[in-house]
Amino acid sequence: MDLVLISIVLGLLAVVYGFVTSRQVLGAGAGNEKMQEIAAAIQEGAQAYLSRQYTTIGIVGVVVAALVFVFLGIIPTIGFLIGAVLSGVAGFIGMNISVRSNVRTAAAAQSGLQQGLTIAFRAGAITGMLVAGLALLAIAVFFWYLTGPAGYAPNDRHVIDGLVGLAFGASLISIFARLGGGIFTKAADVGADLVGKVEAGIPEDDPRNPAVIADNVGDNVGDCAGMAADLFETYVVTVGATMVLTALLFGERLGELLMPMMALPLLIGGACIVTSIIGTYAVKLGKGSTNVMGAMYKGFILTALLSIPLIWFVTDYAIGIDTVIGGAPAGVDPGAPLSEEGMTEQVMSFNGWDLFWCSVLGLAITFLIILITEYYTGTKYRPVRSIAKASETGHGTNVIQGLAISLEATALPTLVIVGGIIIAFQFAGLIGIAYAATSMLALAGVVVALDAYGPVTDNAGGIAEMAGLDESVREKTDLLDAVGNTTKAVTKGYAIGSAGLAALVLFAAYTTDLAEFFPNADVDFSLENPYVIVGLLLGALLPYLFGAMGMTAVGRAAGDVVKDVRAQFKEKPGIMDYSEKPDYARTVDLVTKAAIKEMIVPSLLPVLAPIVVYFVITLIAGQENGFAALGALLLGVIVGGLFVALSMTAGGGAWDNAKKYIEDGNHGGKGSDAHHAAVTGDTVGDPYKDTAGPAVNPMIKITNIVALLLLAALAAG
Amino acid sequence: MDLVLISIVLGLLAVVYGFVTSRQVLGAGAGNEKMQEIAAAIQEGAQAYLSRQYTTIGIVGVVVAALVFVFLGIIPTIGFLIGAVLSGVAGFIGMNISVRSNVRTAAAAQSGLQQGLTIAFRAGAITGMLVAGLALLAIAVFFWYLTGPAGYAPNDRHVIDGLVGLAFGASLISIFARLGGGIFTKAADVGADLVGKVEAGIPEDDPRNPAVIADNVGDNVGDCAGMAADLFETYVVTVGATMVLTALLFGERLGELLMPMMALPLLIGGACIVTSIIGTYAVKLGKGSTNVMGAMYKGFILTALLSIPLIWFVTDYAIGIDTVIGGAPAGVDPGAPLSEEGMTEQVMSFNGWDLFWCSVLGLAITFLIILITEYYTGTKYRPVRSIAKASETGHGTNVIQGLAISLEATALPTLVIVGGIIIAFQFAGLIGIAYAATSMLALAGVVVALDAYGPVTDNAGGIAEMAGLDESVREKTDLLDAVGNTTKAVTKGYAIGSAGLAALVLFAAYTTDLAEFFPNADVDFSLENPYVIVGLLLGALLPYLFGAMGMTAVGRAAGDVVKDVRAQFKEKPGIMDYSEKPDYARTVDLVTKAAIKEMIVPSLLPVLAPIVVYFVITLIAGQENGFAALGALLLGVIVGGLFVALSMTAGGGAWDNAKKYIEDGNHGGKGSDAHHAAVTGDTVGDPYKDTAGPAVNPMIKITNIVALLLLAALAAG
Repeated sequence: MDLVLISIVLGLLAVVYGFVTSRQVLGAGAGNEKMQEIAAAIQEGAQAYLSRQYTTIGIVGVVVAALVFVFLGIIPTIGFLIGAVLSGVAGFIGMNISVRSNVRTAAAAQSGLQQGLTIAFRAGAITGMLVAGLALLAIAVFFWYLTGPAGYAPNDRHVIDGLVGLAFGASLISIFARLGGGIFTKAADVGADLVGKVEAGIPEDDPRNPAVIADNVGDNVGDCAGMAADLFETYVVTVGATMVLTALLFGERLGELLMPMMALPLLIGGACIVTSIIGTYAVKLGKGSTNVMGAMYKGFILTALLSIPLIWFVTDYAIGIDTVIGGAPAGVDPGAPLSEEGMTEQVMSFNGWDLFWCSVLGLAITFLIILITEYYTGTKYRPVRSIAKASETGHGTNVIQGLAISLEATALPTLVIVGGIIIAFQFAGLIGIAYAATSMLALAGVVVALDAYGPVTDNAGGIAEMAGLDESVREKTDLLDAVGNTTKAVTKGYAIGSAGLAALVLFAAYTTDLAEFFPNADVDFSLENPYVIVGLLLGALLPYLFGAMGMTAVGRAAGDVVKDVRAQFKEKPGIMDYSEKPDYARTVDLVTKAAIKEMIVPSLLPVLAPIVVYFVITLIAGQENGFAALGALLLGVIVGGLFVALSMTAGGGAWDNAKKYIEDGNHGGKGSDAHHAAVTGDTVGDPYKDTAGPAVNPMIKITNIVALLLLAALAAG
Repeated sequence: MDLVLISIVLGLLAVVYGFVTSRQVLGAGAGNEKMQEIAAAIQEGAQAYLSRQYTTIGIVGVVVAALVFVFLGIIPTIGFLIGAVLSGVAGFIGMNISVRSNVRTAAAAQSGLQQGLTIAFRAGAITGMLVAGLALLAIAVFFWYLTGPAGYAPNDRHVIDGLVGLAFGASLISIFARLGGGIFTKAADVGADLVGKVEAGIPEDDPRNPAVIADNVGDNVGDCAGMAADLFETYVVTVGATMVLTALLFGERLGELLMPMMALPLLIGGACIVTSIIGTYAVKLGKGSTNVMGAMYKGFILTALLSIPLIWFVTDYAIGIDTVIGGAPAGVDPGAPLSEEGMTEQVMSFNGWDLFWCSVLGLAITFLIILITEYYTGTKYRPVRSIAKASETGHGTNVIQGLAISLEATALPTLVIVGGIIIAFQFAGLIGIAYAATSMLALAGVVVALDAYGPVTDNAGGIAEMAGLDESVREKTDLLDAVGNTTKAVTKGYAIGSAGLAALVLFAAYTTDLAEFFPNADVDFSLENPYVIVGLLLGALLPYLFGAMGMTAVGRAAGDVVKDVRAQFKEKPGIMDYSEKPDYARTVDLVTKAAIKEMIVPSLLPVLAPIVVYFVITLIAGQENGFAALGALLLGVIVGGLFVALSMTAGGGAWDNAKKYIEDGNHGGKGSDAHHAAVTGDTVGDPYKDTAGPAVNPMIKITNIVALLLLAALAAG
């Protein structure tokens, strides 16, 4: 119990950091009147979007909460509400900070690059810490309440169902926020470009473009609020699933160690909050250096390195680093009450050291995935340069090369994940994979900081442009922003990689849960069972269908934007000579409505698919095959989704930076034919990397969580 | 034995059809001197490509044959050589007919549309019938020899290994032909367009473009020789795997029925050759009609309908339609020696009717996949029109919509395949799936005819253009060619759908083989085994990596073409005013070398991957997990590859026809902005639909076959 309280304190520390830092950031100068006016328009737009989105999600949420209550009872419902509300809070506050820091970053950049970097990164760090802190608090406090005041055993079914409910709440918000935000940001972006740059011939971020504010709002809606919800969810799901798996796999056989083992994931999360906070202070440019990415890496690497001893410490503190759990390897005193009985290859004996190494492995996976993503999306390396070069021969070859890179970019991350699975499994079986995933997610604070930094600097550049600030300021915001592209891509690679591991943990929870709920069901999960193949195929189909829906939604919504902007140019002919002001709010309102309308159907796909597949296959071939097909569906979604998401996010990032690379004066520079081709590639990459690709993460997990809830409901019904 | 001889006679019938029809086609007028001169250039180019490709494949083939001999002995080696040589023969003859029929089609189109259609379709039908006939002969004659003169029992290990060797030979040729042909055709096409249309501003098929002959050669190399090898392979693999599975699952327990049961797939193939031949004569336009697609469908539908009673007849003739095999359902006299023993859900009892219904199911799947592909790639329907519409707003939106359609296009075929698996399994377990796949492939003759028709009409149009024939002739060749796009897409959908089912049969052969070779190995194929997950992930990665390699290969080779054409324009300044002739052969030679160089590495990927994965996982986690990971890899390739191939082939076809639709005068017609955007989409779709996508089919199967050979080698070693 003490262990849980410690993690609660560490979670609160993150919230305090957020509070203190936001005072600092908001206390910085907000620039001149014109800048503030523009920023206010962005703030209003963001506010309008968030209220409408949360209202819609709220309605869906209440309906879903009622269903959860009817089928599963009160505790999962409370969990669901906590998860949903805190995910919303993290996104809401983060976004509010973000849309206030953009103008302050632009203002600070007037004094210098470091000043701009400090404000922008701190703003990102607030969102990051709130995500990690609130996620940790959500699980820890709920777990504390259930096992303390409510008096349940840590592995009581109520606790497990409560944690699953919590994860479901976070997931449901996440898929809406990701998809709604993704459609909003790209509809506004593509729409603004099509009619602004292409038709009216005005530059990006030109105040005469009625969609320009919507575009800036979109950056925050997608990369700040969307990513916050996404990683809040992955955090809750991963840490929660590790606890659930511990309870299901070992349960009472752990004896005295049950509570410490269930609390250990929380402590690892708490430890990394401390190191993440320290890391944020290390994000500083070297003297006279303009290597913004280097400064970011300093912060990240420091966090990761400091985390290693701290994770060792909490593991030792919680369960004792030498404590052997289950089995008795030759020459070692077992020292733990768990007997050999029930040990399998999947559930093997391990000790504190094994869990520690698996956690270190998680940190290593994170680091490798970041490096690989930087390779595939950085302007310094072959992939981006090959796309830039292919742009010389036209739009078609640019897109072909970009697609080839996006396909290729799946290989190394997959090998890293596969290597991670094998190594973790060698150390500690299934629970080892869960610990690797947990320590990956424990770094969420500092990773989200990197991501949420992106929209702040993007907006800062836009504000500097629109407010007509000095060229030198724009140069600095450009330097800050150039890195944003890479950090955003890196975070997405991290998110999908960790989601892949988290989903495997969830799948393990599904099979273990199944064995507990339906001990007599002889479910054949073998690949030789055709219903398993059917499940795999249907599961792999989901990300494709979901991706198609996301991409067409962006197309349709962008079309609406184009029509609105054209209409505004017609209604207010004075816009072009600055004698009339465009109605920014109208465009924001339109994109908001479109995004929210478009997000509903695709979001329901992963919620309904597991239920439909289970019932249809059960009807045709009996319940045991229904369970088998459903389990295979879960793995199919992971296997299919991992590749779709990795290829889309990496490909999109590479296209974006290939354009940047050409704009830096290569292959003919701005305005050349190669540049035109690169703009096409960038447009194609937009919905790839910001709508369809990242939304696959929550989709994978929501499918898995719905399956867990379905099991619980079937068992109860 | 009589049954096998009957199928040999029917296979010979196809060869006779090919011989007689080729006499007819080659007897037709070959047009004026200019036309013949152009056609001769294409013929020479094709010849040059084929000799060099077959030389390279020959070298690889000899090395592989030596390896097969060392590890597996003489019979599999003979099988390998038969498969490889006959696959080459089918492609070689088909292609030679194709490059002689193009000019005759152009000449015939001078007399009328029906005349042109007849020549072109007959030319396609020759390739189609040779593919089906030679494939059937390859298996039937080899099987007859092994079970007759050589005296082995039908389920003897030598027979099984021989059939697997045969499939391997066909597969190895197929992957080279598919990939080499795919790279050739698109490198020439993209290269010719880039420098001809874009830089020099001369139209497509202009004789001044040095790459124009290479482009025309490429059509034949890709869609005639490539597709012939692909479907020859799928045919051999599917029918062979069905026979192997029959031997492995039931073996001696079938008693008297063993030989008829193993011969039945051959008879079904033979029966459909008869109906396919009849069907080809039904391809006729209605009076005054220009509905070329309708004429094609008449032939296909007649073939499919006639096949139903004939399949019923051969099933009844071979095993008796009421004969129950295995088990004794309530109230039915078993009547068969196979006991209940060993019956599982996968290997259930069935009777002749069940096999018949599974075969009809295969025909239905074929028909549905053709309909779905036409929906996604036809100019009449929403998908293509949505891409055409999206072209109005630019290159980027065209590509986004095309990608969305390509993702979406995977859904319905997957549902059809999943439905097929479930229904076939309900009828007769695993063997039911094998029969559905067999009857799908039995239609290969008529389906390849549809596909091989494409390059003939495409070339005919080119020759009409280059020879300066009358506008009215070009109109007719355009009408014939417009359908070619759809038939090519349809064949690819069919090829990948049938490959998916065939691969499932191969996977079943793998697991059954494993149980026979290593009866003591306790291989855990359960999704709960992490090495299964590792295998699934690595398997799903292969098509991505393979696709990336194929796409970049096209880019590189097209770049070489661009450089060569530019050099020719510089060296021979008289080309543009027709005073000098470009050196067509030089470009053909260059593309040939590039294509053959580029095809090697990606082709080795699916050959080496199973071997590497097996040995690495065995080293880490023991042989049983090595087998589990390898098995999962096979399924992973199917699950991943099906979606990659379906999305690429359908998306590419849709892009192509969206351009055609605009060229027909919609959305501004030729030369409009929408048209420029649509040309970009078409360029992107080219390597998608003609290189990377279709090459995934043989890749899936070669991975599976290598795994089977590996098992045999391990068991022998």
